[in-house]
Amino acid sequence: MSKEPKITLVGAGPGDADLITLKGLKALQTADVVLYDALVNEELLQYAANAEKIYVGKRSGDHSYSQDAVNKLLVDYAINYGHVVRLKGGDPFVFGRGYEEIDYAAANGIAAQVIPGISSSISVPGLQHIPVTHRGLSESFWVITGTTSSGNISADVYEAAKSRATVVVLMGLNKLVEIVAIFKKEDKHNLPVAVIQNGSTPQEKLVIGVVDNIVEIVKDNGIKAPAIIILGEVVSLHPSFQTCKNLYDAVACK
Amino acid sequence: MSKEPKITLVGAGPGDADLITLKGLKALQTADVVLYDALVNEELLQYAANAEKIYVGKRSGDHSYSQDAVNKLLVDYAINYGHVVRLKGGDPFVFGRGYEEIDYAAANGIAAQVIPGISSSISVPGLQHIPVTHRGLSESFWVITGTTSSGNISADVYEAAKSRATVVVLMGLNKLVEIVAIFKKEDKHNLPVAVIQNGSTPQEKLVIGVVDNIVEIVKDNGIKAPAIIILGEVVSLHPSFQTCKNLYDAVACK
Repeated sequence: MSKEPKITLVGAGPGDADLITLKGLKALQTADVVLYDALVNEELLQYAANAEKIYVGKRSGDHSYSQDAVNKLLVDYAINYGHVVRLKGGDPFVFGRGYEEIDYAAANGIAAQVIPGISSSISVPGLQHIPVTHRGLSESFWVITGTTSSGNISADVYEAAKSRATVVVLMGLNKLVEIVAIFKKEDKHNLPVAVIQNGSTPQEKLVIGVVDNIVEIVKDNGIKAPAIIILGEVVSLHPSFQTCKNLYDAVACK
Repeated sequence: MSKEPKITLVGAGPGDADLITLKGLKALQTADVVLYDALVNEELLQYAANAEKIYVGKRSGDHSYSQDAVNKLLVDYAINYGHVVRLKGGDPFVFGRGYEEIDYAAANGIAAQVIPGISSSISVPGLQHIPVTHRGLSESFWVITGTTSSGNISADVYEAAKSRATVVVLMGLNKLVEIVAIFKKEDKHNLPVAVIQNGSTPQEKLVIGVVDNIVEIVKDNGIKAPAIIILGEVVSLHPSFQTCKNLYDAVACK
Protein backbone atom coordinates (compact mmCIF):
# COMPACT_ATOMS: atom_id res chain seq x y z
CA MET A 1 0.00 0.00 0.00
CA SER A 2 1.41 3.37 -0.90
CA LYS A 3 1.75 6.15 1.64
CA GLU A 4 -0.32 9.31 1.84
CA PRO A 5 1.23 11.96 -0.46
CA LYS A 6 2.66 14.82 1.57
CA ILE A 7 4.90 17.76 0.75
CA THR A 8 6.83 19.87 3.26
CA LEU A 9 8.74 22.96 2.16
CA VAL A 10 11.66 23.41 4.55
CA GLY A 11 14.02 26.39 4.80
CA ALA A 12 17.54 25.08 5.30
CA GLY A 13 18.99 28.40 6.50
CA PRO A 14 21.99 30.35 5.21
CA GLY A 15 24.65 27.62 5.13
CA ASP A 16 25.67 26.56 8.66
CA ALA A 17 23.90 23.20 9.07
CA ASP A 18 23.08 24.02 12.71
CA LEU A 19 20.97 26.95 11.55
CA ILE A 20 18.16 24.67 10.46
CA THR A 21 15.15 24.73 12.79
CA LEU A 22 14.25 21.83 15.03
CA LYS A 23 10.97 21.59 13.11
CA GLY A 24 12.83 21.36 9.79
CA LEU A 25 15.09 18.67 11.19
CA LYS A 26 12.08 16.62 12.35
CA ALA A 27 10.53 16.89 8.88
CA LEU A 28 13.75 15.57 7.35
CA GLN A 29 13.70 12.60 9.74
CA THR A 30 10.32 11.49 8.40
CA ALA A 31 11.07 12.18 4.74
CA ASP A 32 10.81 9.48 2.09
CA VAL A 33 12.34 11.78 -0.52
CA VAL A 34 14.34 15.00 -0.23
CA LEU A 35 14.62 17.40 -3.17
CA TYR A 36 17.41 19.90 -2.45
CA ASP A 37 19.01 22.98 -3.97
CA ALA A 38 22.54 24.14 -4.67
CA LEU A 39 22.68 26.52 -1.70
CA VAL A 40 21.66 23.85 0.82
CA ASN A 41 24.35 22.46 3.14
CA GLU A 42 24.55 18.76 2.21
CA GLU A 43 25.35 17.83 5.82
CA LEU A 44 21.63 18.28 6.45
CA LEU A 45 20.86 15.25 4.27
CA GLN A 46 22.20 12.96 7.01
CA TYR A 47 19.03 13.67 9.03
CA ALA A 48 16.97 12.12 6.26
CA ALA A 49 18.42 8.69 6.91
CA ASN A 50 15.73 6.74 5.07
CA ALA A 51 15.08 9.11 2.21
CA GLU A 52 16.08 9.15 -1.39
CA LYS A 53 18.03 12.41 -1.95
CA ILE A 54 17.65 14.22 -5.25
CA TYR A 55 19.64 17.27 -6.26
CA VAL A 56 17.56 19.72 -8.30
CA GLY A 57 19.71 22.86 -8.08
CA LYS A 58 21.75 24.70 -10.62
CA ARG A 59 25.50 24.47 -10.87
CA SER A 60 27.50 25.62 -13.84
CA GLY A 61 28.11 22.75 -16.20
CA ASP A 62 25.57 20.47 -14.57
CA HIS A 63 22.19 19.56 -15.84
CA SER A 64 19.69 21.82 -14.14
CA TYR A 65 15.98 21.55 -13.63
CA SER A 66 13.48 24.19 -14.65
CA GLN A 67 10.95 25.37 -12.07
CA ASP A 68 8.27 23.42 -13.95
CA ALA A 69 10.34 20.27 -13.76
CA VAL A 70 10.88 20.71 -10.01
CA ASN A 71 7.16 21.27 -9.48
CA LYS A 72 6.36 18.05 -11.33
CA LEU A 73 9.01 16.03 -9.49
CA LEU A 74 7.60 17.21 -6.16
CA VAL A 75 4.13 15.98 -6.98
CA ASP A 76 5.24 12.77 -8.72
CA TYR A 77 7.47 11.73 -5.81
CA ALA A 78 4.76 12.55 -3.26
CA ILE A 79 2.25 10.37 -5.12
CA ASN A 80 4.70 7.50 -5.55
CA TYR A 81 6.79 7.62 -2.38
CA GLY A 82 4.87 9.53 0.32
CA HIS A 83 6.49 12.37 2.26
CA VAL A 84 8.60 14.68 0.11
CA VAL A 85 10.70 17.33 1.84
CA ARG A 86 11.62 20.19 -0.46
CA LEU A 87 14.76 21.61 1.16
CA LYS A 88 15.55 25.15 0.03
CA GLY A 89 18.36 27.53 1.00
CA GLY A 90 17.43 30.31 3.44
CA ASP A 91 13.66 30.76 3.76
CA PRO A 92 11.40 29.25 1.07
CA PHE A 93 9.57 32.54 0.44
CA VAL A 94 12.51 34.94 0.25
CA PHE A 95 13.14 34.83 -3.51
CA GLY A 96 12.88 31.06 -3.25
CA ARG A 97 9.92 30.55 -5.59
CA GLY A 98 8.40 28.50 -2.81
CA TYR A 99 4.89 29.71 -3.48
CA GLU A 100 5.03 28.40 -7.05
CA GLU A 101 5.76 24.96 -5.65
CA ILE A 102 3.00 24.85 -3.04
CA ASP A 103 0.57 26.33 -5.57
CA TYR A 104 1.36 23.58 -8.07
CA ALA A 105 1.04 20.96 -5.33
CA ALA A 106 -2.34 22.37 -4.25
CA ALA A 107 -3.55 22.34 -7.85
CA ASN A 108 -2.71 18.64 -7.84
CA GLY A 109 -4.61 17.99 -4.64
CA ILE A 110 -1.63 17.90 -2.27
CA ALA A 111 -1.66 20.41 0.58
CA ALA A 112 1.87 21.43 1.43
CA GLN A 113 3.18 22.44 4.83
CA VAL A 114 5.72 25.26 5.13
CA ILE A 115 8.54 25.32 7.67
CA PRO A 116 10.30 28.67 7.64
CA GLY A 117 14.09 28.94 7.47
CA ILE A 118 16.68 31.42 8.67
CA SER A 119 16.95 33.94 5.85
CA SER A 120 20.45 35.09 4.93
CA SER A 121 19.06 38.62 4.59
CA ILE A 122 18.89 39.08 8.36
CA SER A 123 21.18 36.36 9.70
CA VAL A 124 24.30 36.81 7.58
CA PRO A 125 24.78 40.45 8.64
CA GLY A 126 23.66 39.49 12.17
CA LEU A 127 26.30 36.79 12.56
CA GLN A 128 28.84 39.51 11.75
CA HIS A 129 27.29 41.72 14.45
CA ILE A 130 25.73 44.02 11.86
CA PRO A 131 22.15 44.55 13.08
CA VAL A 132 19.64 45.22 10.29
CA THR A 133 17.88 47.58 12.72
CA HIS A 134 19.35 49.69 15.53
CA ARG A 135 17.89 52.56 17.55
CA GLY A 136 19.03 55.88 16.16
CA LEU A 137 20.38 54.34 12.93
CA SER A 138 17.58 52.34 11.32
CA GLU A 139 13.88 51.80 11.96
CA SER A 140 13.44 49.42 9.03
CA PHE A 141 15.15 47.12 6.55
CA TRP A 142 14.32 46.50 2.91
CA VAL A 143 15.29 43.23 1.25
CA ILE A 144 15.50 43.18 -2.56
CA THR A 145 16.55 40.67 -5.18
CA GLY A 146 19.42 41.70 -7.43
CA THR A 147 18.30 39.20 -10.06
CA THR A 148 14.74 39.69 -11.30
CA SER A 149 13.01 37.31 -13.66
CA SER A 150 13.65 39.77 -16.53
CA GLY A 151 17.38 39.88 -15.77
CA ASN A 152 17.17 43.64 -15.17
CA ILE A 153 17.88 45.28 -11.85
CA SER A 154 14.73 45.61 -9.75
CA ALA A 155 13.08 49.02 -9.96
CA ASP A 156 12.74 48.77 -6.18
CA VAL A 157 16.48 49.44 -5.82
CA TYR A 158 15.91 53.02 -7.09
CA GLU A 159 13.32 53.62 -4.38
CA ALA A 160 15.39 51.90 -1.72
CA ALA A 161 18.36 54.16 -2.47
CA LYS A 162 16.18 57.15 -1.56
CA SER A 163 14.99 55.60 1.72
CA ARG A 164 16.43 55.55 5.23
CA ALA A 165 16.00 51.78 5.42
CA THR A 166 18.88 49.38 5.77
CA VAL A 167 18.98 47.92 2.25
CA VAL A 168 19.86 44.25 1.79
CA VAL A 169 20.35 42.96 -1.76
CA LEU A 170 20.41 39.21 -2.33
CA MET A 171 21.87 37.67 -5.51
CA GLY A 172 23.11 41.12 -6.55
CA LEU A 173 26.89 40.84 -6.69
CA ASN A 174 27.03 40.80 -10.49
CA LYS A 175 24.95 44.00 -10.45
CA LEU A 176 27.09 45.79 -7.85
CA VAL A 177 28.35 48.47 -10.26
CA GLU A 178 24.77 49.36 -11.20
CA ILE A 179 23.59 49.27 -7.60
CA VAL A 180 26.25 51.66 -6.33
CA ALA A 181 25.59 53.97 -9.30
CA ILE A 182 21.98 54.26 -8.14
CA PHE A 183 23.08 55.15 -4.59
CA LYS A 184 25.61 57.68 -5.93
CA LYS A 185 22.81 59.44 -7.82
CA GLU A 186 21.14 59.95 -4.43
CA ASP A 187 24.40 61.49 -3.13
CA LYS A 188 25.01 58.57 -0.80
CA HIS A 189 28.70 58.32 -1.64
CA ASN A 190 29.73 57.73 1.97
CA LEU A 191 26.99 55.32 2.97
CA PRO A 192 28.61 52.26 4.58
CA VAL A 193 28.37 48.99 2.62
CA ALA A 194 29.24 45.41 3.52
CA VAL A 195 29.50 42.48 1.12
CA ILE A 196 29.51 39.01 2.63
CA GLN A 197 30.29 35.90 0.61
CA ASN A 198 29.31 32.38 1.81
CA GLY A 199 27.87 33.80 5.02
CA SER A 200 27.70 31.52 8.09
CA THR A 201 30.07 28.93 6.56
CA PRO A 202 33.82 28.29 7.09
CA GLN A 203 34.34 29.85 3.63
CA GLU A 204 32.80 33.17 4.71
CA LYS A 205 34.49 36.35 3.46
CA LEU A 206 33.49 39.87 4.51
CA VAL A 207 34.50 43.22 3.08
CA ILE A 208 33.42 46.64 4.24
CA GLY A 209 33.57 50.02 2.59
CA VAL A 210 31.33 52.80 1.38
CA VAL A 211 29.29 53.30 -1.78
CA ASP A 212 32.20 55.08 -3.50
CA ASN A 213 34.83 52.39 -2.94
CA ILE A 214 33.03 49.06 -2.40
CA VAL A 215 33.39 47.96 -6.06
CA GLU A 216 37.17 48.35 -5.80
CA ILE A 217 37.30 46.59 -2.41
CA VAL A 218 35.22 43.66 -3.70
CA LYS A 219 37.55 43.33 -6.68
CA ASP A 220 40.74 43.63 -4.58
CA ASN A 221 39.54 40.87 -2.27
CA GLY A 222 38.23 38.53 -4.94
CA ILE A 223 34.72 38.35 -3.51
CA LYS A 224 32.49 36.02 -5.51
CA ALA A 225 28.86 34.87 -5.51
CA PRO A 226 26.97 33.74 -3.51
CA ALA A 227 27.14 37.01 -1.63
CA ILE A 228 24.81 39.49 0.00
CA ILE A 229 25.13 43.27 -0.04
CA ILE A 230 24.13 45.42 2.94
CA LEU A 231 23.91 49.20 2.49
CA GLY A 232 23.14 51.37 5.51
CA GLU A 233 24.45 53.28 8.51
CA VAL A 234 24.22 50.08 10.61
CA VAL A 235 27.26 48.76 8.69
CA SER A 236 29.37 51.40 10.44
CA LEU A 237 28.91 49.44 13.70
CA HIS A 238 31.20 46.68 12.39
CA PRO A 239 34.80 46.95 13.68
CA SER A 240 36.19 46.59 10.14
CA PHE A 241 34.62 49.89 9.23
CA GLN A 242 37.46 51.58 11.15
CA THR A 243 39.99 49.51 9.15
CA CYS A 244 38.34 50.63 5.94
CA LYS A 245 38.78 54.23 7.01
CA ASN A 246 42.47 53.68 7.69
CA LEU A 247 43.20 51.75 4.50
CA TYR A 248 41.29 53.68 1.91
CA ASP A 249 40.29 57.17 2.74
CA ALA A 250 39.51 58.76 6.06
CA VAL A 251 36.81 60.85 4.45
CA ALA A 252 35.24 58.10 2.36
CA CYS A 253 34.76 55.65 5.21
CA LYS A 254 33.55 58.19 7.76
CA MET B 1 37.12 28.37 40.29
CA SER B 2 34.64 30.43 38.36
CA LYS B 3 33.89 29.76 34.71
CA GLU B 4 34.94 31.89 31.76
CA PRO B 5 32.33 34.65 31.22
CA LYS B 6 30.46 34.08 27.97
CA ILE B 7 27.34 35.62 26.45
CA THR B 8 25.28 34.14 23.61
CA LEU B 9 22.39 36.07 22.06
CA VAL B 10 19.88 33.53 20.77
CA GLY B 11 16.83 34.20 18.61
CA ALA B 12 13.96 32.06 19.90
CA GLY B 13 11.81 32.41 16.79
CA PRO B 14 8.19 33.57 16.45
CA GLY B 15 6.48 31.40 19.10
CA ASP B 16 6.39 27.73 18.05
CA ALA B 17 9.12 26.16 20.23
CA ASP B 18 10.23 23.92 17.33
CA LEU B 19 11.16 27.00 15.32
CA ILE B 20 14.33 27.53 17.33
CA THR B 21 17.50 26.60 15.47
CA LEU B 22 19.56 23.56 16.35
CA LYS B 23 22.42 25.95 17.15
CA GLY B 24 20.23 27.91 19.56
CA LEU B 25 19.11 24.71 21.23
CA LYS B 26 22.74 23.62 21.72
CA ALA B 27 23.57 26.99 23.28
CA LEU B 28 20.69 26.57 25.74
CA GLN B 29 21.99 23.11 26.70
CA THR B 30 25.30 24.61 27.85
CA ALA B 31 23.82 27.68 29.55
CA ASP B 32 24.45 28.47 33.21
CA VAL B 33 21.91 31.29 33.12
CA VAL B 34 19.09 32.15 30.68
CA LEU B 35 17.67 35.68 30.52
CA TYR B 36 14.43 35.58 28.55
CA ASP B 37 11.76 37.93 27.23
CA ALA B 38 7.98 38.06 27.24
CA LEU B 39 7.62 36.87 23.64
CA VAL B 40 9.75 33.77 24.14
CA ASN B 41 7.99 30.38 24.34
CA GLU B 42 8.77 29.14 27.85
CA GLU B 43 8.84 25.52 26.63
CA LEU B 44 12.30 26.35 25.33
CA LEU B 45 13.60 26.75 28.87
CA GLN B 46 13.45 22.96 29.32
CA TYR B 47 16.54 22.64 27.10
CA ALA B 48 18.51 24.67 29.63
CA ALA B 49 18.29 21.93 32.23
CA ASN B 50 21.10 23.18 34.44
CA ALA B 51 20.54 26.90 34.10
CA GLU B 52 19.03 29.53 36.31
CA LYS B 53 16.14 31.09 34.34
CA ILE B 54 15.44 34.78 34.75
CA TYR B 55 12.50 36.58 33.21
CA VAL B 56 13.41 40.12 32.10
CA GLY B 57 10.49 40.92 29.83
CA LYS B 58 7.63 43.32 30.12
CA ARG B 59 4.11 42.27 31.00
CA SER B 60 1.41 44.65 32.10
CA GLY B 61 1.33 44.82 35.87
CA ASP B 62 4.65 43.06 36.32
CA HIS B 63 7.88 44.62 37.30
CA SER B 64 9.85 45.22 34.13
CA TYR B 65 13.51 45.79 33.49
CA SER B 66 14.93 48.76 31.59
CA GLN B 67 17.38 48.04 28.75
CA ASP B 68 20.19 49.34 30.99
CA ALA B 69 19.21 46.91 33.70
CA VAL B 70 19.15 43.98 31.26
CA ASN B 71 22.58 44.96 29.93
CA LYS B 72 24.01 45.00 33.46
CA LEU B 73 22.38 41.69 34.41
CA LEU B 74 23.87 40.04 31.33
CA VAL B 75 27.39 41.09 32.24
CA ASP B 76 27.02 40.47 35.98
CA TYR B 77 25.69 36.96 35.48
CA ALA B 78 28.40 36.15 32.92
CA ILE B 79 31.12 37.23 35.35
CA ASN B 80 29.60 35.35 38.28
CA TYR B 81 28.08 32.26 36.65
CA GLY B 82 29.76 31.69 33.26
CA HIS B 83 27.68 31.13 30.13
CA VAL B 84 24.67 33.42 29.86
CA VAL B 85 22.17 32.80 27.06
CA ARG B 86 20.12 35.85 26.24
CA LEU B 87 16.97 34.38 24.67
CA LYS B 88 14.99 36.89 22.62
CA GLY B 89 11.79 36.54 20.59
CA GLY B 90 12.23 36.33 16.81
CA ASP B 91 15.69 37.42 15.66
CA PRO B 92 17.84 39.44 18.09
CA PHE B 93 18.50 42.20 15.54
CA VAL B 94 14.97 42.73 14.19
CA PHE B 95 13.83 45.50 16.56
CA GLY B 96 15.26 43.39 19.38
CA ARG B 97 17.81 45.89 20.69
CA GLY B 98 20.30 43.04 20.47
CA TYR B 99 23.14 45.26 19.36
CA GLU B 100 22.83 47.38 22.50
CA GLU B 101 23.40 44.24 24.54
CA ILE B 102 26.43 42.92 22.68
CA ASP B 103 27.88 46.44 22.58
CA TYR B 104 27.58 46.77 26.36
CA ALA B 105 29.07 43.30 26.82
CA ALA B 106 32.01 44.17 24.54
CA ALA B 107 32.61 47.40 26.46
CA ASN B 108 32.91 45.21 29.54
CA GLY B 109 35.39 42.88 27.92
CA ILE B 110 32.98 40.06 27.07
CA ALA B 111 32.70 39.10 23.41
CA ALA B 112 29.19 37.91 22.65
CA GLN B 113 28.21 35.32 20.07
CA VAL B 114 25.03 35.81 18.03
CA ILE B 115 22.74 32.96 16.94
CA PRO B 116 20.06 34.21 14.54
CA GLY B 117 16.41 33.37 15.03
CA ILE B 118 13.42 32.93 12.76
CA SER B 119 11.96 36.43 12.44
CA SER B 120 8.18 36.72 12.59
CA SER B 121 8.39 39.25 9.75
CA ILE B 122 9.03 36.52 7.17
CA SER B 123 7.87 33.35 8.92
CA VAL B 124 4.46 34.34 10.27
CA PRO B 125 3.09 35.25 6.83
CA GLY B 126 4.99 32.27 5.37
CA LEU B 127 3.36 29.76 7.71
CA GLN B 128 0.04 31.09 6.40
CA HIS B 129 1.26 30.53 2.82
CA ILE B 130 1.64 34.27 2.24
CA PRO B 131 5.04 34.62 0.56
CA VAL B 132 6.78 37.96 1.26
CA THR B 133 8.10 37.77 -2.30
CA HIS B 134 6.54 36.19 -5.38
CA ARG B 135 7.38 36.51 -9.08
CA GLY B 136 5.10 39.01 -10.75
CA LEU B 137 3.78 40.40 -7.45
CA SER B 138 6.76 41.48 -5.35
CA GLU B 139 10.50 41.78 -5.88
CA SER B 140 11.16 43.00 -2.35
CA PHE B 141 9.85 43.28 1.20
CA TRP B 142 10.25 46.11 3.69
CA VAL B 143 10.05 45.44 7.41
CA ILE B 144 9.27 48.40 9.69
CA THR B 145 8.63 48.87 13.38
CA GLY B 146 5.27 50.36 14.31
CA THR B 147 6.65 51.49 17.66
CA THR B 148 9.67 53.79 17.44
CA SER B 149 11.64 54.96 20.46
CA SER B 150 9.85 58.34 20.25
CA GLY B 151 6.42 56.68 20.29
CA ASN B 152 5.59 58.20 16.92
CA ILE B 153 4.94 56.21 13.80
CA SER B 154 8.13 55.63 11.81
CA ALA B 155 8.64 58.09 8.96
CA ASP B 156 9.64 55.04 6.92
CA VAL B 157 5.97 53.97 6.74
CA TYR B 158 5.24 57.03 4.54
CA GLU B 159 7.94 55.96 2.08
CA ALA B 160 6.91 52.31 2.23
CA ALA B 161 3.32 53.21 1.30
CA LYS B 162 4.66 54.69 -1.95
CA SER B 163 6.73 51.63 -2.80
CA ARG B 164 5.92 48.37 -4.58
CA ALA B 165 7.49 46.37 -1.73
CA THR B 166 5.54 43.97 0.44
CA VAL B 167 5.34 46.00 3.65
CA VAL B 168 5.52 44.19 7.00
CA VAL B 169 4.90 46.20 10.16
CA LEU B 170 5.87 44.68 13.50
CA MET B 171 4.46 45.99 16.80
CA GLY B 172 2.11 48.25 14.86
CA LEU B 173 -1.41 47.08 15.73
CA ASN B 174 -2.13 50.07 17.99
CA LYS B 175 -1.10 52.33 15.10
CA LEU B 176 -3.25 50.54 12.49
CA VAL B 177 -5.61 53.49 11.92
CA GLU B 178 -2.66 55.79 11.22
CA ILE B 179 -0.95 53.20 9.03
CA VAL B 180 -3.96 52.64 6.78
CA ALA B 181 -4.50 56.42 6.56
CA ILE B 182 -1.00 56.71 5.09
CA PHE B 183 -1.74 54.02 2.50
CA LYS B 184 -5.09 55.67 1.66
CA LYS B 185 -3.26 58.92 0.90
CA GLU B 186 -1.32 56.97 -1.72
CA ASP B 187 -4.62 55.77 -3.20
CA LYS B 188 -3.98 52.19 -2.14
CA HIS B 189 -7.53 51.64 -0.89
CA ASN B 190 -7.75 48.13 -2.35
CA LEU B 191 -4.29 46.90 -1.42
CA PRO B 192 -4.66 43.52 0.34
CA VAL B 193 -3.77 43.47 4.05
CA ALA B 194 -3.38 40.61 6.53
CA VAL B 195 -3.13 40.93 10.30
CA ILE B 196 -1.86 37.90 12.20
CA GLN B 197 -2.00 37.65 15.99
CA ASN B 198 0.17 35.17 17.95
CA GLY B 199 1.60 33.77 14.73
CA SER B 200 2.91 30.18 14.73
CA THR B 201 1.21 29.33 18.06
CA PRO B 202 -2.05 27.47 18.86
CA GLN B 203 -3.55 30.89 19.69
CA GLU B 204 -2.92 32.20 16.16
CA LYS B 205 -5.63 34.36 14.61
CA LEU B 206 -5.60 35.66 11.04
CA VAL B 207 -7.76 38.26 9.35
CA ILE B 208 -7.57 39.44 5.77
CA GLY B 209 -8.98 42.49 4.05
CA VAL B 210 -7.87 45.56 2.19
CA VAL B 211 -6.60 48.96 3.31
CA ASP B 212 -10.13 50.39 3.34
CA ASN B 213 -11.73 47.74 5.56
CA ILE B 214 -8.96 46.12 7.63
CA VAL B 215 -9.55 48.35 10.68
CA GLU B 216 -13.19 47.22 10.82
CA ILE B 217 -12.24 43.56 10.28
CA VAL B 218 -9.62 43.67 13.04
CA LYS B 219 -12.17 45.21 15.41
CA ASP B 220 -14.93 42.73 14.44
CA ASN B 221 -12.63 39.81 15.13
CA GLY B 222 -11.12 41.10 18.35
CA ILE B 223 -7.54 40.90 17.10
CA LYS B 224 -5.06 41.97 19.80
CA ALA B 225 -1.31 42.44 20.12
CA PRO B 226 1.14 40.81 19.58
CA ALA B 227 0.29 40.96 15.90
CA ILE B 228 1.99 41.65 12.61
CA ILE B 229 0.57 43.56 9.66
CA ILE B 230 1.34 42.60 6.05
CA LEU B 231 0.35 45.00 3.26
CA GLY B 232 0.90 43.94 -0.33
CA GLU B 233 -0.41 42.16 -3.39
CA VAL B 234 1.06 38.88 -2.10
CA VAL B 235 -1.70 38.82 0.54
CA SER B 236 -4.21 38.17 -2.26
CA LEU B 237 -2.66 34.69 -2.64
CA HIS B 238 -4.22 33.60 0.66
CA PRO B 239 -7.49 31.63 0.27
CA SER B 240 -9.25 33.88 2.83
CA PHE B 241 -8.88 36.80 0.47
CA GLN B 242 -11.73 35.28 -1.53
CA THR B 243 -13.84 35.07 1.66
CA CYS B 244 -13.11 38.71 2.36
CA LYS B 245 -14.40 39.59 -1.09
CA ASN B 246 -17.63 37.67 -0.46
CA LEU B 247 -18.23 39.01 3.04
CA TYR B 248 -17.41 42.65 2.68
CA ASP B 249 -17.35 44.07 -0.77
CA ALA B 250 -16.55 42.45 -4.06
CA VAL B 251 -14.89 45.63 -5.22
CA ALA B 252 -12.95 46.37 -2.04
CA CYS B 253 -11.30 42.97 -1.80
CA LYS B 254 -10.42 42.65 -5.44
